[in-house]
Order: sequence, then C-alpha cells, then structure tokens
Amino acid sequence: MKQICRMDEWKVIEDKLHPGDNRLAESLMSIGNGQMGMRGNFEETYSGDTHQGTYVGGIYYPDKTRVGWWKNGYPEYFAKVLNAPNVTGVRVFADDEELDLHTWKVHEFKRELNMKHGYLYREFDVTSPEGKHIKGKVTRFFSIIDASIIAIKYEVTSEDFEGKITFQPYMDGDVRNEDANYDEDFWMPVHHEADKEQAVLTMRTRKTEFDVSAAMTNQLVGQETKVEDVVNKEEYVDQKHTASIKPGGKVSFYKYVAVTTSRYFNKNELADEAKKQVAKAADSGFTFLFKQQMEAWERRWNHADVTIGGDTSAQQGIRYNIFQLYNTYTGEDALLNIGPKGFTGEKYGGSTYWDTEAYCLPFYLGTADSSIARNLLIYRYRHLEKAKENAAKLGMEGALYPMVTMNGEESHNEWEITFEEIHRNGAIAHAIWNYVNYTGDTSYLPEYGFEVLAEISRYWASRVNYNPRKGKYIILGVTGPNEYENNVNNNWHTNRMAAWTLEYTLSVALYLERNHQKRFVELKSKLGLKEDDFDHWKDIIEHMYYPVDEQLGVYLQQDGFLDKDLIRVADLDEKHLPLNQNWSWDRILRSCFIKQADVLQSMYFLNHRFTLEEKKNNFDFYEPMTVHESSLSPCVHSIIAAEIGYEEKAYEMYLRTARLDLDNYNNDTEDGLHITSMAGSWLSIVHGFAGMRVEKGELHFKPFIPKAWGDYSFKINFRGHLIKVSVNHQQVVITQEEGSDFAIFINGEEKQLPAEGNITI
Amino acid sequence: MKQICRMDEWKVIEDKLHPGDNRLAESLMSIGNGQMGMRGNFEETYSGDTHQGTYVGGIYYPDKTRVGWWKNGYPEYFAKVLNAPNVTGVRVFADDEELDLHTWKVHEFKRELNMKHGYLYREFDVTSPEGKHIKGKVTRFFSIIDASIIAIKYEVTSEDFEGKITFQPYMDGDVRNEDANYDEDFWMPVHHEADKEQAVLTMRTRKTEFDVSAAMTNQLVGQETKVEDVVNKEEYVDQKHTASIKPGGKVSFYKYVAVTTSRYFNKNELADEAKKQVAKAADSGFTFLFKQQMEAWERRWNHADVTIGGDTSAQQGIRYNIFQLYNTYTGEDALLNIGPKGFTGEKYGGSTYWDTEAYCLPFYLGTADSSIARNLLIYRYRHLEKAKENAAKLGMEGALYPMVTMNGEESHNEWEITFEEIHRNGAIAHAIWNYVNYTGDTSYLPEYGFEVLAEISRYWASRVNYNPRKGKYIILGVTGPNEYENNVNNNWHTNRMAAWTLEYTLSVALYLERNHQKRFVELKSKLGLKEDDFDHWKDIIEHMYYPVDEQLGVYLQQDGFLDKDLIRVADLDEKHLPLNQNWSWDRILRSCFIKQADVLQSMYFLNHRFTLEEKKNNFDFYEPMTVHESSLSPCVHSIIAAEIGYEEKAYEMYLRTARLDLDNYNNDTEDGLHITSMAGSWLSIVHGFAGMRVEKGELHFKPFIPKAWGDYSFKINFRGHLIKVSVNHQQVVITQEEGSDFAIFINGEEKQLPAEGNITI
Repeated sequence: MKQICRMDEWKVIEDKLHPGDNRLAESLMSIGNGQMGMRGNFEETYSGDTHQGTYVGGIYYPDKTRVGWWKNGYPEYFAKVLNAPNVTGVRVFADDEELDLHTWKVHEFKRELNMKHGYLYREFDVTSPEGKHIKGKVTRFFSIIDASIIAIKYEVTSEDFEGKITFQPYMDGDVRNEDANYDEDFWMPVHHEADKEQAVLTMRTRKTEFDVSAAMTNQLVGQETKVEDVVNKEEYVDQKHTASIKPGGKVSFYKYVAVTTSRYFNKNELADEAKKQVAKAADSGFTFLFKQQMEAWERRWNHADVTIGGDTSAQQGIRYNIFQLYNTYTGEDALLNIGPKGFTGEKYGGSTYWDTEAYCLPFYLGTADSSIARNLLIYRYRHLEKAKENAAKLGMEGALYPMVTMNGEESHNEWEITFEEIHRNGAIAHAIWNYVNYTGDTSYLPEYGFEVLAEISRYWASRVNYNPRKGKYIILGVTGPNEYENNVNNNWHTNRMAAWTLEYTLSVALYLERNHQKRFVELKSKLGLKEDDFDHWKDIIEHMYYPVDEQLGVYLQQDGFLDKDLIRVADLDEKHLPLNQNWSWDRILRSCFIKQADVLQSMYFLNHRFTLEEKKNNFDFYEPMTVHESSLSPCVHSIIAAEIGYEEKAYEMYLRTARLDLDNYNNDTEDGLHITSMAGSWLSIVHGFAGMRVEKGELHFKPFIPKAWGDYSFKINFRGHLIKVSVNHQQVVITQEEGSDFAIFINGEEKQLPAEGNITI
Repeated sequence: MKQICRMDEWKVIEDKLHPGDNRLAESLMSIGNGQMGMRGNFEETYSGDTHQGTYVGGIYYPDKTRVGWWKNGYPEYFAKVLNAPNVTGVRVFADDEELDLHTWKVHEFKRELNMKHGYLYREFDVTSPEGKHIKGKVTRFFSIIDASIIAIKYEVTSEDFEGKITFQPYMDGDVRNEDANYDEDFWMPVHHEADKEQAVLTMRTRKTEFDVSAAMTNQLVGQETKVEDVVNKEEYVDQKHTASIKPGGKVSFYKYVAVTTSRYFNKNELADEAKKQVAKAADSGFTFLFKQQMEAWERRWNHADVTIGGDTSAQQGIRYNIFQLYNTYTGEDALLNIGPKGFTGEKYGGSTYWDTEAYCLPFYLGTADSSIARNLLIYRYRHLEKAKENAAKLGMEGALYPMVTMNGEESHNEWEITFEEIHRNGAIAHAIWNYVNYTGDTSYLPEYGFEVLAEISRYWASRVNYNPRKGKYIILGVTGPNEYENNVNNNWHTNRMAAWTLEYTLSVALYLERNHQKRFVELKSKLGLKEDDFDHWKDIIEHMYYPVDEQLGVYLQQDGFLDKDLIRVADLDEKHLPLNQNWSWDRILRSCFIKQADVLQSMYFLNHRFTLEEKKNNFDFYEPMTVHESSLSPCVHSIIAAEIGYEEKAYEMYLRTARLDLDNYNNDTEDGLHITSMAGSWLSIVHGFAGMRVEKGELHFKPFIPKAWGDYSFKINFRGHLIKVSVNHQQVVITQEEGSDFAIFINGEEKQLPAEGNITI
C-alpha cells in the first residue's frame, strides 16, 4: 500500500515528483477516451524511470505463445493490444539545454488528473544544470467529442532566462511492448511525411496488418516564432519551433494530433483523413476544444456521478473508478471491449475476460444508454463462430467462449484456466439475461441472444457426463471462479450456471415460439436444433448434480471440499498473506482458502433464486475462508453482505476495492490500473448499500448508509427513467429527473414515483 | 513405427543412407561408456540433416526456466547436461574436394552398431562430384576400460583416384544445445594449444564453471604422409594430415582423444592430464585398445546377456536395451545417474527421474556388482540436504526429492508435476528396501539409508491431513504415476507408498535399535527424532485412508474415480490414439484413460503385500483402460500379467517396449533413445516371464516361455552367486556358475542348487 497522491473530491494530485514511483504515478494519471489512451507520461524527454505507453483500441498483435511445457490445445498466439507510436512527445530546449525533469533541479512540481473535466495538467518550476530558471504548465486531453483527437497546450514562462526556447514536437513509431514474449518489434513503417505545417506517420502492425496513422499540427505563440527545421524519416517525424523569450516572458505551444486507423478507414485514405481531422482541430483551436471537453465530461458526470458526503477519500475513490471506466470504454464500437488494464499498461494484453460480463456490464447498464451494454453483448455475438471452433478444438459441441481474447480466439495458455475455467460461458449467457431483465429489450433475443444461448447450452450439454451410479449429470475437471482450486469435480457454481443457462435458453425458446414464431423456425433451422436437444436439456436440468452438505446447510464449492482442513483466514498467521506471494501453488490448492467468490458468485448472478437464509448460511461458511486475492472478490461479498444485513462487513469489503489503485493496495498499480474491478465499487454502492435490484421488470431498493459517511447519492438510467437516489442517516430520497410516473419498490413496498417528483422515506 | 535397421542378433545394421531419417539413425547408433557418449554422427562433414551431439556425464548448466505463467515455488533454472565440444570430427578431402555423403554419390553405405564388442562401424563407397571414386571404413569406440578415451580408425581406399588425401581432425568448442531455452551459448573458452603432435582444447561451462579438456593425437599411415598445417584458435583446434594415394591404394588414419573434466581433476592439471592420457592411448595403439574393448564387452555380456532363441527380432531388442543401459551408466561414480535419454539426445536434459529407482535399479541389481546399485542409492543420499530445502520451500517438513534433477535441486516447472507428483518420494524409499532385500546388505541402513527414510517419512507425516469426518489421514492434491490425472485427492498409490514408507522406516528403526544401538542413538540425535515422531507415524499407518470399491473388489486410483465414464481403450475409435496427440489436456484428465501403471505400480513395488486375487481384480479393472502412453507402462503390466497367469498379455506388453527405439514405435527416437524404459524389457523377462522374486532373502522363480520363442536364458548376480536361468518349452534349467550351494524356490518348491551344478525341471 502506497499513497502518492493528495485527496481531493474531483482531482488526483501529485504534489511532487516521485522518481522512484514514476511508473505508479504514470498509471494513476492515465487518460483516454474509450478509443485510445495513454499513461501519464511527460511530453518532454524524461531520462528517469518511465514506461512510455500509448494504446489504440482494437489494434493488436498475435504474439507467439511462450510456454514451459506445451499441452495439446494451447493457442499458438496471445493477441495483445500494442504499445502504439508515441504521438504526444514534445522535446523542449532552453537554448541548447534540453528540459529533463530527471536532471534539472525541480523546485516545484505538480501533476494533476482533473476527473471533473477530463484532462491531465502539470506544472513545474525548474532550473537547468547551467542555471536557466523556467516554469512550465502543460495541459493534455483525449477528446471525448471527437475520439481521434489529442490536444496539448505547453506553456513556458521564464524567470531569469533570456534566449531561445525550442519546442520539438515529434511522433515516433519505433516502440516496443515491454511484455513482448520474444522481444520482437511489432510495427513496420508504411508512410511518413513532414513539412512546416503538418507531419504524418503511418505504421502497420506485423501479421495483423492494422494501419495506424497520426497527423500533427503545431502552433507556437510568442516572440520571433518560426519553424526552423523538419525531420522526415522512416518511423519518425518532427518539427522544430523556436521563439525568443526574456525574463518574465511567456511562450505557449499547442500540439494537435489526430489518430486514424484502418479499423475505420481505408488504408489509402488513412493519412489524408488524419491530416483532415487534425487541420479541423487546429482550426477550432485549443480553447474551444478544451471547453467542449469540459462540458462533455460535465454532461457525463451528470448521469454517472456518485456523491459521497463526509468522506473525501471515498468520494475521490468512486469518482476515480468511474472516470477510468469511461476512459476505457464508451460503448460506441461493438468490436471493442474492456481490457483489465484498459489503456494504462500492457499486462493481460488489453484482452477481454469474463470480467466484462460479470462486473462491467451492470455498471454500464446503470449509468449509460442501453445501447452501450447491448454493444458489449454484440461483441460476443460476433465471436460466436470462433467460440464454436474453440469448443470443437476441445472435442465438444456448441460454443465455448475463450477465457482471454481479442478477436474471438483463445489467447491464454494455462490448461487449468484455458480448458477448465468454463464457468465463463455461464457469465456470458447470464449477461444476456441481465441485459434483457434490466432494459426490457426483448428484441435482443430473436436478433442475437438466442443463438448465443443455444450454442452455449449445446456446449454444456456435451460437457456434462451422466453418471449412472449417482443417477445424475456431473461436470468433471473444471476450475471455478475461485482459481485457488484447479481441476475439481462438480464445482457448484459451474454446475449451477450450466443448468441455469439451459433453463434460460429453454425459456427464451418458449418466448420466441410464442412471440416470434417465424424467426424461431428460422433460428432452429439455422442452428440445427431439434426437439431432442430441448428434451436432453430438460433432462440435464432435472438431474443435475449439486454438491451440498445438509447438516451445514451449505452448497459445497466442489466434490470433497469438506475433506480440507477448514481454517478461517483470521486464524492464519499474517506472515502467510497474501498466499499467492508466500505459498507454493500446491499448498494453495490443498487449502480451503478461497481467492474470490465462487458459491457466492452464483448467489450474486442468480440473486433472485436464493433465500436470504441460503445467502446467509453460505456467506457465513465461505467468507471467513476467503482471502480476496482477486480484485473482483470484495464487491460480490459486499453486495451479499449488504443484502443479509451485515452492514459493517459490506463496508469493509467496499473499502478493499474502492481505492485499490489510488492506494496501490496490491503493490502492482505501476503495471497499470485494475479497470474491470473498478466497476465493483460502483456495484457495491448501488447493488450493495442501496440494494438495487430489478425483478420482473420492476425496480427495487433497500438502502442503508455506512456509518462513516454523511450521505451518498447516485443516478441510474432505467427503462427511460433517470433516477437519483440520495441516502443519508435520516432519509432516502428518490427523485425522478427524467421520465414519466412509474412504480418502484423501496424495502419491498411499492411506491409511485412521479415524473420530475420524488419520494422521501 | 519405422524400422530403418536390419535384424541381427548382435548388431544394429543400417544398410543404406537415410537422409530423411538421419537423426533417427544417429540416435540408434549412439555409443558411450557410462562417463560420456555420443550420437552416431559421422566423423567427416555431413551437410544433410544431422544432430551433432556429444555428452559428458555430470557436466551441466542451469538453463533459465522458460514458463508461460509463473507459479510460486517454481525453480529458476533447469539444469541440463550440455552438448559438449565436438571432439570426434575429422574432415576428409580428396585433393580439394571435401568428402560429404550428402553431396557425393553414394554407391554403398553401411552403418553398424556392434553390440557384442561395443563399437560403431561404417563403410561407404562413394564418388565425388568431380568423379573421384573412393571407399571408406570407419571404426569408433568409447573405451570402457579407460572411460576418458575415444579411438577412431578411418581407412580410405582409392578405386580410381590418384592424388592427395587429407585428414583434418579437429576439436570444436563452439557448440549449442538445440533445446536451450533462450538460445544461449553455454560454454566459454579457457585454453587451446595445437602443434603437429598434439592439440588440446579446454572449455568451461558458464555459471557452473565445469572445465572439460580434450586432447587429441592423430596418426596417418600411408604414402608420403606429413602434417601440413595446424590451426590453433580460441574454441577450435585442428591438424592437417596428408598422404598420397593411387588407385587400389589405402591410407589409414587414427584419431585418439582423451577427455578429462574438472569433476575428477584440478583445473590447472586438466589439459596436461588429457595430454598424458591421449599419449598413453596412442602409444598403446588402436589395435591393442580395440582388442581390450572387445574383450571387456565380452566379459560384460557374460554376466548381462539375455538370449532368446527362435526370434532374432526379440534377441536384437533385448541386447540393444542392455547395451544402451551400460553405455549410459556403469555405476562407478555415485554422482552420476541415468538420464531418460542417456548420452543420445538433449530432451529431458539428461536429468534424473524416479525412473532410476523404479526401473533401472532392479536391472543393475540383477546384472552387476551390488556396489553399482548402492551407488545409485548414495546419489540420493548426497542430495538429502537439497531435498530438505525443497520440502521447506513448499512449506513441508522432512525431505521431498525433486521430480527432475541434476545436482539435487528441482529443475521441473509444471505445478501438477513439480509440486504434486510426490509419489516419487515413495519410489526413492522403496529403492532402499529393494536394494537391502535383494543384496542382504543391511550395512547400508545405519550408514546412509535410515537418514533418507526418516526424512522422507517426516515429509509424508507433514503432507497428510487428518480428516475428522472420515477419522482418517488423507492426502490431497497429488498427481500419481498416471500423469493423465492431475491434482487429485487420495491417489491410492501415493497413500499406499506413504504409509509403506512409514512402516518400513519404523521397521528399520527397530532393526537399528536392536543391532546398531550406538549408531541409532547418534542418528536420532542428528535427525532430531523423538518418540512422538514414531507414534505419529504409527497413527498415520493405522488410520491412512485408502479409496476402495468393495463391490468391484478394486482399489480406487483416487477419490471419485468411479464418477468417470468407464470405457475400455479397445472400445475407443483408433483415430483418438495416442490421446496425447489427439485430445486436449482437460479431455484426457476427465477421461478414465490411464497413461501408465498407477494402482498397479504399488502392486509391482509391494508385490509381496497383495494376493493374486487382488492383483487379478485390479489388473482386470485397470489394464483395459490403460493406453500405455508412457514407455514405463508396459513392463509393469507385463510382470503382473505374467504373475496372474495372463501369459499372452504379458508377452503383448513385453513387445511394446522391447523394440521401442529400434522400431521407432513412438515416432520420437530421433530426439534420443528411451534409456530408462529399456530396463523394462529386461524386467519383463526376468521378473515377468521367469517370475523372479526375492522374499525373505530367498530367490524364487516361476518361469514360463512365450509361445513365439524357442528358448530364453539370462544370468543374474545374487548374493555372491552367479546363476543362469535357461527356459524352453520342455524344461527349466538353473545353473550356478559361481558361488556355493544354496536353496532356491521354483514354482514355490524349495530346491538345493549345488555349486557349479544345476537343477532341471
């Protein structure tokens, strides 16, 4: 745990340079716009430790798999989002001395992420080795109005220096991924041009052959400004802008960049498109673009904000999480998804995990237009053929979605995960239910949803074994969400989600048969579905085996779970924690200790199916053995704890993710932010503290407020209504900001919520 | 399956060049002397596909681990035996044309491994691109009298060529391991010298800093011979010997090499020692050395030979296996062991596996002086401290021997093997019992054996869990010998061997207490053993949990085994076989199919503990589900099948290993020979067909003969007796060749075997 930034409700502020923790600061100061993003790197040269990282969504490379011992079925490649050309660089010189905060004397320094208005701001007061004293102020943002635009304002004032100030804006295509498996160069040059007005660099990824073009236009405002020189090389372009400056004087430099990719444009138009866009941005000017950006973020916050009164730390934490989620994913492009580290680092390759469906989807359902969540579902629909190939490769029918993917193909290569952590298929099916349940948009089912459900159901039906001794269907050899168990039999969550998928698919089939008869006939024919399939699925549902212990009144995480030594984490000497850094893998596997919600994951997904008593019994049994060594663990526990009335526990769990990165809780934020788990803190508040549920199309709340807080509020979109929920220790106020009268349920009691009115309890 | 060599009772003969299968031929034609060895590479340049490989026992390098996803507890290095400097090379020129069997026209070619006399012989009849027609005969051997010596005779006769013949013997230190994880160079140069008499090259391994020195002396016999030139470079030395030749004429070239290592000599004496030894060898002359070699091999065969009448293929197979085992390990050096591929390839890094204890030890017990088997035990004794460190690293007490090792440290990095395949500890304990039981040498126990047994017992005692629900001790999270199951609970074999180890250790403790009281007190104090430990071990023995199915009358391979779909291999479509090439890993794990003996492995180890009925029931249950995809599987099944009267099955199983490499049965012999499993075919004959057992110090036989054979015979050393067993379809003759009168048991009946006499039945 390490906190290098100051508390503020709307900002993340680094008050001094942290040369030893610069990578951590760079991760924290990441900004993006859902299409691209970058770490909080400096524009100017920095010779200290830094991880220069710019990432463009959907631009990936299949890096050759590295493995100790090959297992049949492993993928040959790990598709990863690439570290893209550095397009924000601006070298700065005072006469012939180059500005470098690592070697210059730094009197004052501030780096500040402005979450309210979506930009990164820096200021510094420095003296060069030869004694030139200057100050700088730098503002950078990735436009959320026009997602191809980056704008930078770089202001330098002189304290005592008289001479020439040079700004050398450049774009550099010679970049490497730090996490490349074989240290290969993933990019090749395509095109470069540069003159005093504009410069363009086009690079192409190897193998996948994505083209990325970046064009820049630069302006310098000051005395005796001119463009002295231009470099136009393969993989590198720059310009040299100079001005003269005197003590007390100021120069303002503006860099505009437009990034276009072959994902949206023809390759032969790419450079021209970038040039056109950058020219337009430069015409609009920094001030105009910046105002637009600020207003757009204010609009976004108006829907997405969560306020917490009386606790600046909590307030900063939740806003940071929401801010970074929107930096990563905005949902306009159904080919993009949410990498665990977003655009803030290289780890996990920017790929898609089941995190998206389980944790991020509910966040976007609640805070954004339903088309965004729909796009997250369509992403998987588009990968259906690949998921069928994946199942076939493993000798199964139907579709098995990959554990880790970029383009629908599996990227991961640990047999216990890749081949066995198949509950992900359940999460993907569940997301369809979740979307339809929340939005009421049943049109998704005939159009896309049923195909995905049917193929996943087919997979489950081929993956179960009928065991005549038990008279039950069983599922052998899986890894559940608790990855501290591998290759277990009858993981309760997996069995539960498999049977649930079959049930839901059958109910959707019935719905289609009744309401979309023609389409249903069409779909059955396309999918080759027969009545036999439906009968088989029914038989599996009826005879699915679930490990339970009647005496303890709990569902068993897997066969044989009670053979373990059952020890509470609280009774474990702290020196053993975290287990994943102190115990060998076999020891972790033998132990009862749980990485993240497993039985409880079903209770979160299928909340309406379980009684409070069941939730309480299982929570009481499993949570004390849970080490929460996944950032995805606490939120699920927080939500269930809230539901069963364990308010303090719910708050304790909330705290474990709320500031995970801001406080560098796991000591790994330097690699990038934990984007997907950020949704968890929003879920803890909305589904947990406020007890929001949607049942049979109706909205329910059951709010409480943590003792440490004065009040909290959030807004949600729900079927055309924009609702604000405000809770303090005295009352709950639910206000309808948009939409017409409708009924909601508070603590189980039906209330009419008037248009533009509110209910106070 | 591919047979490229001709049948012969004493030879392996390749009748023509196989450019597409040259690596296979090179593996098959490997020779060695237990200290070093090499593949059947040509001396002269060969521009076709070849894997040049020379290996020196005990000279290893810790290659940095390559892994996809790191797990806590993995070793950082994989210690592997290195491909050593090429010391046998001799370039040959006819005038300025260099002999190369890949580019010259080959009229006739023969490569022949002479097993009877321990050498490799080649002859060829070739014409150069320019039309020079010559013949060659090349003989090479690795001396088993003086294990540092290699001698080569290279004879060239001219058919129509008149001119200069040049032999350019060289030694080259610039070699790489094909299997290097990061393509590093493992050697660095230390010393080189060369003149017209001698040349020396000393190389040093990086990190481990072993020095290897090789000295060569060469002689050319012919017309107008002279040494024209010498090259003396870093990492490379050569000489250029020339002679003139005429049609019908002949030249004979001799290369003598001595290899010395810093494992036996001081580094500063190494080069001189090599020079001294090579000078001595050259003085003795090729003819003398060759005669010595042939006589030594004849003496060895006199003890170790197995004859099979009426089946040349079987005869060749068993002799080949015995020959290659002795090429790999002769037992004089307790720091060496038996790599799965010996000195014939790089795979598995030449490291030690439990194969040694389970399969090779009984072979050496039967065919060689007992000091050799004793050295195999002492090898593990010397690694005891490392095995204790290994256990501690995994959070356990006592000693866990590594799965794969060179110097006692674990080298392997698959968690399911490295951390979980712990039954190896049982095999290592069992080897002590096996040695003492066979030889009667109880002195090993106070001197070395008890310490190893006690520390292994301690490990088992810390690795079990007491489960109050079952009232039993259980062992969670293991991989048994059947590696087609990973991370299972209560693998019957592991539980059985753990409890057996504790029993045997306690019985040895009792023996020491009674017979070596002082030493026992000393050992208890050294090991910190208390009565509590012994009581705890007794409690574990009494309350060990064993999965069984009373109804089927079988021991269960592991908890939950009967949940699987139980299918016979015979009922599986052949297209699925071998499973390890056709099924993804999870599918293999879920299936009932068994890679190699698991429950039956205990019945082989602890043969005397089980009734025939138990063996039969378990064999009938498990063997039909066994795919034998380990070369170590068939021999165990052959032995048990023989015991329970399944003679045809026993023979079928025997055939699966007897010619594994000669027939390239698994299509991987090009990587090297399957040395450790070669012991299996000897075991199948001696323990299987002849039913040899040693019980309570007495020797038992229960012979039968496979229908396909006319007769068979073998000799064994047993407690000072050399006994020959001859079996045909009419009678069994047991002859004592050395030793005094003693009683043996044939088919359970006691017989007196007179000195130099025999028994016929």
